[in-house]
Amino acid sequence: MGSRYEIRLGGSGGQGIILMGIILAEAVGIYDGKWVAQTQSYGPEARGGSSKSEVIVSDEEIDYPKAMKPDLLLAMNQKSCDEFYPDLKPDGILIVDSTFVTQVPTPRAYQIPFTRIAREKFKREVVANIIALGALSQLSPIVSARAIEEAVLKRVPKGTERLNREALRAGIAAARKAKREMAKVEISSENPGEDLFDSY
Amino acid sequence: MGSRYEIRLGGSGGQGIILMGIILAEAVGIYDGKWVAQTQSYGPEARGGSSKSEVIVSDEEIDYPKAMKPDLLLAMNQKSCDEFYPDLKPDGILIVDSTFVTQVPTPRAYQIPFTRIAREKFKREVVANIIALGALSQLSPIVSARAIEEAVLKRVPKGTERLNREALRAGIAAARKAKREMAKVEISSENPGEDLFDSY
Repeated sequence: MGSRYEIRLGGSGGQGIILMGIILAEAVGIYDGKWVAQTQSYGPEARGGSSKSEVIVSDEEIDYPKAMKPDLLLAMNQKSCDEFYPDLKPDGILIVDSTFVTQVPTPRAYQIPFTRIAREKFKREVVANIIALGALSQLSPIVSARAIEEAVLKRVPKGTERLNREALRAGIAAARKAKREMAKVEISSENPGEDLFDSY
Repeated sequence: MGSRYEIRLGGSGGQGIILMGIILAEAVGIYDGKWVAQTQSYGPEARGGSSKSEVIVSDEEIDYPKAMKPDLLLAMNQKSCDEFYPDLKPDGILIVDSTFVTQVPTPRAYQIPFTRIAREKFKREVVANIIALGALSQLSPIVSARAIEEAVLKRVPKGTERLNREALRAGIAAARKAKREMAKVEISSENPGEDLFDSY
């Protein structure tokens, strides 16, 4: 079995989760040249407004296209964070939209306010998913910013290319900032200082 | 195990196969209230321009989301017809875009020129996939025209609703015509007349 990398994207209906999965899969599959399977499931519960999309990347053809233990979880709302975090691999990457996810299950989560950036910087909440894709290109080892950009520009409506390119860049910048903040968390947890002693 | 219905859509890149899968899955899953899994796979071969999308419908939650023996195959080009027809169930439904599929493997195929209708009636080749969805609502037992229409209108760009609604209707009309033609084929094969005797 070749190396396999599993990504799950979760959020509420209207957050553009399915388009995000399609774009991510195309970026990896067509531009980065791996095997990719991309799945969404709908059930009677989907009418409640939940949305889930999965992308599996492999060096070889994929027989089972569902995520078993995701390597990366992007949670765009609290419900999907709560529901899917337990499935994440122990060393998996958690990215949350901190506009909506206020309770993170681990301090090792990348917390980025995708929707707030979309509202404040672009006055268009609808680009939150594209900002998130920009961030994902920085926080996961699986896809390059360039491949994501090509795939985004292929899928978004004509006339919105510039907006979407800028949204991607905003996501890339936000992810770099989140990485620096994470580095600080890691340094402080390696040097826990007084707090740890206090808890004994 | 509940009843399971497998649909495979195939064509070349740019024919809108993936959007078709998304819309069909949303129509069945959200509006018709079944469990649905929708998958596309990309491999290194996708750069050659082939596109495949699958929709699995079930009365219960779907564990394995890939089609094993499709109940319905929609082939938008010759290559996908040749490649996927052998997987079709013996009594499965084959629908082809006869603009591009000129060699059908069975007389029991529904042959509808989706792309030619798109060009001639709408001057927009890009709606061929929506015309095909309209046809599918008439030729498969799995989804209603109404659910398809709701799902289409949710996914297409703003300002194109009327065009897409008319494309759906053109597909519905073309499918009804194809059904009548198929009925003639079936009657003539039940009453083969002289031809059969000649072959002995």
